[in-house]
Amino acid sequence: MSVASSMRGFPEWLPDGQLVEQHVLATLRRTFELHGFAPLDTRSVEPLETLLEKGETDKEIYVLRRLHAEPGEPSSGLGLHFDLTVPFARYVRENAGKLVFPWKRYQVQKVWRGERPQEGRYREFLQADVDVVGRGELAAHFEAELPLVAADALGRLPIPAVTIQVNSRKIVDAVFGEVGVEDRTGAFRAVDKLRKIGPEAVRALLVEAGASRAQAEVCLRLCSIRSTDLSFVDEVLALGVRSDLLDEGLAELSAVLEAGRLLGEGATPFVADLQITRGLDYYTGTVYETVMEGLESIGSVCSGGRYDNLVGGAGNEAYPGVGLSIGVTRVLGPLFSKGRLRASRSVPTCVLVAVADEEHRPVSDRVASVLRSRGIPAEVSPTAARYGRQIRHADQRGIPFVWFPAGAGPEGGGRSEVRDIRTGDQVPADEHEWSPPTADLEVTIWGE
Amino acid sequence: MSVASSMRGFPEWLPDGQLVEQHVLATLRRTFELHGFAPLDTRSVEPLETLLEKGETDKEIYVLRRLHAEPGEPSSGLGLHFDLTVPFARYVRENAGKLVFPWKRYQVQKVWRGERPQEGRYREFLQADVDVVGRGELAAHFEAELPLVAADALGRLPIPAVTIQVNSRKIVDAVFGEVGVEDRTGAFRAVDKLRKIGPEAVRALLVEAGASRAQAEVCLRLCSIRSTDLSFVDEVLALGVRSDLLDEGLAELSAVLEAGRLLGEGATPFVADLQITRGLDYYTGTVYETVMEGLESIGSVCSGGRYDNLVGGAGNEAYPGVGLSIGVTRVLGPLFSKGRLRASRSVPTCVLVAVADEEHRPVSDRVASVLRSRGIPAEVSPTAARYGRQIRHADQRGIPFVWFPAGAGPEGGGRSEVRDIRTGDQVPADEHEWSPPTADLEVTIWGE
Repeated sequence: MSVASSMRGFPEWLPDGQLVEQHVLATLRRTFELHGFAPLDTRSVEPLETLLEKGETDKEIYVLRRLHAEPGEPSSGLGLHFDLTVPFARYVRENAGKLVFPWKRYQVQKVWRGERPQEGRYREFLQADVDVVGRGELAAHFEAELPLVAADALGRLPIPAVTIQVNSRKIVDAVFGEVGVEDRTGAFRAVDKLRKIGPEAVRALLVEAGASRAQAEVCLRLCSIRSTDLSFVDEVLALGVRSDLLDEGLAELSAVLEAGRLLGEGATPFVADLQITRGLDYYTGTVYETVMEGLESIGSVCSGGRYDNLVGGAGNEAYPGVGLSIGVTRVLGPLFSKGRLRASRSVPTCVLVAVADEEHRPVSDRVASVLRSRGIPAEVSPTAARYGRQIRHADQRGIPFVWFPAGAGPEGGGRSEVRDIRTGDQVPADEHEWSPPTADLEVTIWGE
Repeated sequence: MSVASSMRGFPEWLPDGQLVEQHVLATLRRTFELHGFAPLDTRSVEPLETLLEKGETDKEIYVLRRLHAEPGEPSSGLGLHFDLTVPFARYVRENAGKLVFPWKRYQVQKVWRGERPQEGRYREFLQADVDVVGRGELAAHFEAELPLVAADALGRLPIPAVTIQVNSRKIVDAVFGEVGVEDRTGAFRAVDKLRKIGPEAVRALLVEAGASRAQAEVCLRLCSIRSTDLSFVDEVLALGVRSDLLDEGLAELSAVLEAGRLLGEGATPFVADLQITRGLDYYTGTVYETVMEGLESIGSVCSGGRYDNLVGGAGNEAYPGVGLSIGVTRVLGPLFSKGRLRASRSVPTCVLVAVADEEHRPVSDRVASVLRSRGIPAEVSPTAARYGRQIRHADQRGIPFVWFPAGAGPEGGGRSEVRDIRTGDQVPADEHEWSPPTADLEVTIWGE
């Protein structure tokens, strides 16, 4: 009942879905701020040369033109951003002199991609990114901190449990390098498809990329390693490869798992999964992908990694960073479609203040105003229909309480009363003192 | 210090401005929900025929094209929305069967207009709309309720005091009609310019629109009427015009002022101002414009009105509504430029947890985690530099407290301590019990 969209690729939700989405976004913002991340909102539009800077052409870009452009007027040269990393990098480059590093920011915005819409693929969708960026250097411990922030945020949402699959590009790079795979990019790309096409097809791709059968075998053995504890280290070392880069990668990946274990109180949400490479992306250290339990088929809902220079080509200074991006629409869309997210009511209102007759509407207005001043969402009945109909108005929206103000018409009587319309219990109440049960104050969201 | 924008018409803020904007948006959402308005977020993109439905061509529209469109591929036929009313109307039309009326919604989103950027005019900017829409009919009392919601929301922001100027199209229509002005649209348009071009020029425009000198005189006298109480009624009646439409308009405008007085506790934010007509817009009853004290020159920051059929052409049923739109960017931009909005710190963090040495980082991580679980925004120092430098790291960001965990290195000693770095006071503290003063818990925003 939550999906309303009428245009493929541009999802919209019905009112209950809207409430769920607002709740999710507020929870994400709140969690990011609890971790000290500062908000950033960039314009939605970038010059095309900025969007194409990294040479990526696999993301379809929407370019803008004024409807009333004069014939021969040059194109605006502007396009809608397709992710939040490119505008973040541009913002850091432009404002580096006014930022204090390391700078932690979160960014919750829509992005646009002119791709063919399919299940889980949208043309307009919401992302929630967290990144930390340093100037010159950035300590490795952030590679453990960032996925913990994402895990905390996802853990507070009414969605299925998630597993964050972690790997280090350094490990893969070291092993592939030591065994002699020359086309490293081709090999990464091949391995990235492992879950989709299976080991046989990946073996063929690796051989195509110039690996021998023996080399491909080692690569595939590496990629099959997966552990929630540090046992992956011995398994990798058993492949017989040794190098400084490998040691670095193993130490960094171990640190991520350790940090997860220390804070995770029992089951860690992290898994070392050596087949995660993030394909063509420009990561240089730890990389992350996240799956929701029972919904693995929709792919990663929170991905990212460590990069060595975010800003690129901006003078001599490098701006290394670590970041993750939560695909908010990608998480909500399938859950809405399956009817697995519910809101306790379809409006924020906790109390509907009844109106005895139009003459006494100001009495009801004042009651609602007092309730609001005490943080209780309240609205006044749209009509002075008989009370039965006013109660029905509340019921249709899931509003739990109806207030009957004192001194407002014959039924209101000499004292105010409030009725819990779910139980029918009606008690005398003073708007300066009465409070609803905590569970009823705000809309409650839950997953099934 | 808050404005960062590098591209004219596409404003962006520095980190302190970002915090202010987030605070403003959260306050608006919270206030709208306290009044029972439900959230709505629509896609940013509409079919061009939807955008052009009302025949408006004065808003410049950005149309979209895929960068990799094949030659000869038809245009996407899509444009970015230029306000939040058109997508709201389209959403109501599409989902009317699943909505419960009267439906109250708020919508906080960016809109785009390809206009020439100037002071206070943007190409991408944030609006915050509240509307109530009925099916078939909508009671007049909503024309008093909606501006009260807007006044409540604006009153909670750290901005100069606002005055909501209210008028009724019915009054203007009745008077203009009774005195014999034939080109009513031309007259509205002329009067709308009164504040900009003065009475002499408006008189000329009215005559141009077919009014006699005497008729123009009555129109101008009507437009000069302005009162914070109900005295406007007698002044209008003194013009000598009588009609049912006029009585209706006077009663409705009086009701708005009365509602403001009842709830306003002293000075009402409402002024009856008979020159407000909202130019070309499609309003049919009460109309609103809002000015900020001392910043009248930037024009209205919150406008709207009553309309008789939002949806237009959707079968036999009419969808009357009342709504107002707050120009968030239009409010913030000038205040940022003048340095009149301040944030108490540049990050959400309340406590920086110091790190004795990298080996003890997990101790600090655990302290921060406990503080966060108690709702206290906390982050861990990025480096294990000497404590003086870690304190400076907090100071640079305005973080008020630095925490020194127990059992973490020689300086940490046997007990945890927390220092208020503004006063230098350092006291023993337990992360399970200590709380900052309420004023320090979250970033504080204030206007000057």
